[in-house]
Amino acid sequence: MKENREEKRRRLIEQSKETVSEAYSSLDHPIMQAINTYKEIEKVRGIIYERMEEWYGIYFPELKNVGQEAYARIITSMKNPEDMTGESMKEILGENGTVIYDSIRGSTTRPKLGDKEYSALKDLADSEKNLSALQKALDSYMEESVKKALPNISYLIDHKIAAELLAKAGSIDRLASFPASTIQLLGAEKALFKHLKFGSKPPKYGVLYKLPQISAASKKQKGRLARVYATKISIASRADAYTKRFIADKLKEQLDKAVERIMKRGD
Amino acid sequence: MKENREEKRRRLIEQSKETVSEAYSSLDHPIMQAINTYKEIEKVRGIIYERMEEWYGIYFPELKNVGQEAYARIITSMKNPEDMTGESMKEILGENGTVIYDSIRGSTTRPKLGDKEYSALKDLADSEKNLSALQKALDSYMEESVKKALPNISYLIDHKIAAELLAKAGSIDRLASFPASTIQLLGAEKALFKHLKFGSKPPKYGVLYKLPQISAASKKQKGRLARVYATKISIASRADAYTKRFIADKLKEQLDKAVERIMKRGD
Repeated sequence: MKENREEKRRRLIEQSKETVSEAYSSLDHPIMQAINTYKEIEKVRGIIYERMEEWYGIYFPELKNVGQEAYARIITSMKNPEDMTGESMKEILGENGTVIYDSIRGSTTRPKLGDKEYSALKDLADSEKNLSALQKALDSYMEESVKKALPNISYLIDHKIAAELLAKAGSIDRLASFPASTIQLLGAEKALFKHLKFGSKPPKYGVLYKLPQISAASKKQKGRLARVYATKISIASRADAYTKRFIADKLKEQLDKAVERIMKRGD
Repeated sequence: MKENREEKRRRLIEQSKETVSEAYSSLDHPIMQAINTYKEIEKVRGIIYERMEEWYGIYFPELKNVGQEAYARIITSMKNPEDMTGESMKEILGENGTVIYDSIRGSTTRPKLGDKEYSALKDLADSEKNLSALQKALDSYMEESVKKALPNISYLIDHKIAAELLAKAGSIDRLASFPASTIQLLGAEKALFKHLKFGSKPPKYGVLYKLPQISAASKKQKGRLARVYATKISIASRADAYTKRFIADKLKEQLDKAVERIMKRGD
């Protein structure tokens, strides 16, 4: 049966609709949104922590560098020192808790926290709790979807770092089209620009710096490690984008050996 | 009865404790914390709004510039277009709602929002709601406490702007010690530094720019208005800090007249 012109037109529209839908239904976009949101929330939590510390710290200067989650929990449960015990403080802060609680009880010149102030502080603490829970949800979402979308890359490196590489590249196809040297420098665009424009030192790594294996290494090793990681990630990305075959177990073996060689060689 | 040395020591310690407690129990500190928190939360809400728009916008590009509160409400109630009606959209967005809803229903190539993605988006929307509620609470707290702590200044200008001046000065006593010209430039420190260091144009106003009377005026009038406001605020601040007498009704009369003169004079 031959299509007439109108039928053909409709069929083509349907086809292109499907193509658009598929492009957006792929996992690329949600993963990139998730990692970008994760990173922005990291900033937001930092701002809120600073605010909590500066404000609540007027009343309880004894609490310093306890971390934002613990800080929020303490705010929620303590308006006045009597609201807690050494035990409950220990539950939140670990061994240090008792000592800190004793120093809080020991000080007598403490100004009194007003009701409305305390209520604002508790709201801040609640926001910290929400956002921290959201980060955890995003993390577990990424873990799952990165493994699905990038089975090879995520076999080699942490799923959040894989997601960041993807977000910097813009899509899995673009990531797979990059040479290893570009992957090595993804996330170091500013430093690279400075190098090209003003002749400062060229960067040796971008996002990959966050790999614990690399950040823990010595300065010279860092560059070498970034190069071998980038090389294997580049191969893995092509498998994830095009052949869809799982080859990462072999890549991982080679990678581990290369890393071992670099670490043995020393500085 | 004569005090012995030990008694005297104790009495002096008690006295200094009280002084410290009083200093911190004054309303200065909570007000400054509240306004600083208010402003930081403004930033945080901006970041969250941007995240929501970029992510949810993949699925509903029809929603643009609807404002963060409305956007969060829509996210909470719409995973798929069928979850809403023209009516419910109108309730959130006003008259425009129906048109926007129709265009949403009209488009058929929409990708489908996954469960976990939607749950992350709803968490973001919840954070926006929390933070917006917190801002409102801080605002009403400031309204009350600024009126109490700075009855004269807050009779002349909005309580949030009064709180900002206080936070820039560091304390009510410091604010009262400033000449009018300093008050006029509070919040313009960067521009002032640039002027002194690099010879750029001197700033004419800082925080006071936010007064609707000033921001709405013409360029030349702005500077003149900022000067008369600063003059009256400076007198009001001394009454708030030292004499504690209410003189703002007279100041307001003079201020209104001066403003009228400037506006009549035109450019």
